[in-house]
Amino acid sequence: MQPDPAIDRKLLDRLIAEVSAFGATSGGGLNRLCASPEDGAARDWLKRLLAAHGCRVLVDRVGNMFGLLDLAGPHAPLVLAGSHLDSQPHGGRYDGAYGVVAAAVAAFAVAAMARRADRAPRCNLAVVNWTNEEGARFAPSTLGSNVYAGRLDPAAALAATDAGGITLGAALAAIGYAGTDEAPLQPLAYLEAHIEQGPHLEKQGKTIGVVEGNWGTVKYEVTCQGRAAHTGPTPMRERRDALLPAAALVLFVRELSDETGGALLSSVGRIDVTPNSTNVVAASARIFVEFRAVEASMLARACARFEDRARALEGDGIRLAVQRTVDRAPGRFDARLARLIEQEAGARGLASMRLHTIAGHDAVPLAAMLPSAMLFVPSAGGISHNEAEFTRPEDLQAGADVLAGALARLVWDGLPS
Amino acid sequence: MQPDPAIDRKLLDRLIAEVSAFGATSGGGLNRLCASPEDGAARDWLKRLLAAHGCRVLVDRVGNMFGLLDLAGPHAPLVLAGSHLDSQPHGGRYDGAYGVVAAAVAAFAVAAMARRADRAPRCNLAVVNWTNEEGARFAPSTLGSNVYAGRLDPAAALAATDAGGITLGAALAAIGYAGTDEAPLQPLAYLEAHIEQGPHLEKQGKTIGVVEGNWGTVKYEVTCQGRAAHTGPTPMRERRDALLPAAALVLFVRELSDETGGALLSSVGRIDVTPNSTNVVAASARIFVEFRAVEASMLARACARFEDRARALEGDGIRLAVQRTVDRAPGRFDARLARLIEQEAGARGLASMRLHTIAGHDAVPLAAMLPSAMLFVPSAGGISHNEAEFTRPEDLQAGADVLAGALARLVWDGLPS
Repeated sequence: MQPDPAIDRKLLDRLIAEVSAFGATSGGGLNRLCASPEDGAARDWLKRLLAAHGCRVLVDRVGNMFGLLDLAGPHAPLVLAGSHLDSQPHGGRYDGAYGVVAAAVAAFAVAAMARRADRAPRCNLAVVNWTNEEGARFAPSTLGSNVYAGRLDPAAALAATDAGGITLGAALAAIGYAGTDEAPLQPLAYLEAHIEQGPHLEKQGKTIGVVEGNWGTVKYEVTCQGRAAHTGPTPMRERRDALLPAAALVLFVRELSDETGGALLSSVGRIDVTPNSTNVVAASARIFVEFRAVEASMLARACARFEDRARALEGDGIRLAVQRTVDRAPGRFDARLARLIEQEAGARGLASMRLHTIAGHDAVPLAAMLPSAMLFVPSAGGISHNEAEFTRPEDLQAGADVLAGALARLVWDGLPS
Repeated sequence: MQPDPAIDRKLLDRLIAEVSAFGATSGGGLNRLCASPEDGAARDWLKRLLAAHGCRVLVDRVGNMFGLLDLAGPHAPLVLAGSHLDSQPHGGRYDGAYGVVAAAVAAFAVAAMARRADRAPRCNLAVVNWTNEEGARFAPSTLGSNVYAGRLDPAAALAATDAGGITLGAALAAIGYAGTDEAPLQPLAYLEAHIEQGPHLEKQGKTIGVVEGNWGTVKYEVTCQGRAAHTGPTPMRERRDALLPAAALVLFVRELSDETGGALLSSVGRIDVTPNSTNVVAASARIFVEFRAVEASMLARACARFEDRARALEGDGIRLAVQRTVDRAPGRFDARLARLIEQEAGARGLASMRLHTIAGHDAVPLAAMLPSAMLFVPSAGGISHNEAEFTRPEDLQAGADVLAGALARLVWDGLPS
């Protein structure tokens, strides 16, 4: 048995402050869209950090970054830990970046321990920054981790375009992250630390969330097609206003949640209207719809009713195209890894609770490929995807401590039974 | 009594084709926003055209262009005719541009007649292109004509900003139309030819619409303020989704019209959501609302109910700011000028009908300053603010003929009694 790795708490605090400068907004948040210049600067910073701590940095075709620490020789299995540096347009400082920084600080602590250890590690370690987790600039979200997990074709991923028609491939090339390295193989396990982005840990007074699994999520893009017309002289009966069915669906999406007492989560976060001019009846309106539930049956019921309602809004010159863009079944993370996280929290006297992640994370697609798990730290007020997102420094440290402990166990002992 | 002026029909056809090239879209329409490079090119073309036909071209501070034809000496009163060259983002070829081209062709015909006439004209003529009629890029609409009519401060007009924060003043300077000329004074009357943008002339089989007056219009900007949050882990009861009240108001605006059997016209043509990201509960949603009615009382009733409803949607962390941005009372054009247009149509054997304009036009603010009137030509299918907007060449010619006839009467005989 090895002693516990000791993370450098001052380094953690400093790295969080440093990474928060890339894309910083006046509101205290971030605007660091995937493959933007700000993301490029954050990536350069991460590359320098990893190299300075002895990592070999690889960048694969879709820009995923791997900082490899060779602890056990070139043929040893690999333990991965990380998250993502990209943010929402007006996102917070912790969503994603915390997981990358925590993985780096934890990996450095494990490497330092390995140099002093009397027993050789059995695995190598890699700190990972996955490309385009947020999906705010390019679709789909969790793009890089889906490519690594073999669930998304790299060429299709690189061809994804942003709202301005720029491809991910071109955007990565522009910031110097259209990599040519092969992603490292032989992964043994993946661990990801993340802020909860919800209120449960804070409300229950727990420091560590042991993430057992993920909710199911279905997302739709619904395009309502009407006809542009002057909002003045066009008689009402001759208007084909695409915004009307879109507005009706926005309200219906909420009703479907209300009917379950809020157990079903639902949202329309985005609406794109064409031409979106005051004097012109909307020719088209596209809404981006989400449903999330822990039970597959509740999710399926909501989707069926939503699709029925969309069909009912068609006719009289209005057409609706309903496209299901995400269909993520409820799933479970690796139970052995979840237990390991729980034990490491307990060994440090940190109160933990089990929960599911409602949001998507890179760990979700990776869990389909290799044993994966997540740990959460509390989000103040449950607020996330908001510039006011905040997690206390002591909670950030606690999460990194637990991550380091779990990584050390994996590196020396392999997967627990 | 003079003979009727003869417009050059081939010139009219050619000018319509030429002006339609500036900002032409692949869909057969126009994207020629006010003070854009495309608008600049159209303005340069108009300036060359007017100068080539003997006009002195003046450009005032807010970019209004005047092509002066000196027919009666520097102290004679001035008859104005024109419209606007700016378009909606995906607008049609005729909305505005037709009125400028018809005014030019008619003015050239009147000038040619003056050269042959045995009696000297009593008035001068000016062809006008008013800045920012559409209001698609800068607010308010009919900006240039409001400044000329003394209803809008020029400095405030120049400080209007587009969605990208560019001021009208800067945009005009960039295309070379931040003018320094004084706008010509002593106006006697203003005439404007325009496409109807509605279906009535076509349905009634009439060629010329004699516009008696304008409908009342009230426009609102309503900003719904909620709170950004992750659409995944945030419990439904803790969400403050700004899109929900906005969607409810979109539907209510339509209901208010339905209750009047469509007599009240209503529309929400634009909605701006922040941050407008799939994964983020809308922090704010701004809708742009219009109500139009021929009766002031119907309009007032709708506005009161709308404002009540908006107030009722406030609370529980959602705030609404309701701003009335346009409040245009129903009004009447000059009855003498309307009769003159009617007589000139009749003298040419053209079937006419009286109607009101529902849309705003430059003639509406000008009517508050000087005797003004409009004539309409048919819009195929009533379609406008749409790339498919179309008026038959023979109808365009008929309108220009009537305009030329009316301008000739005014230039030789002054205002009819």
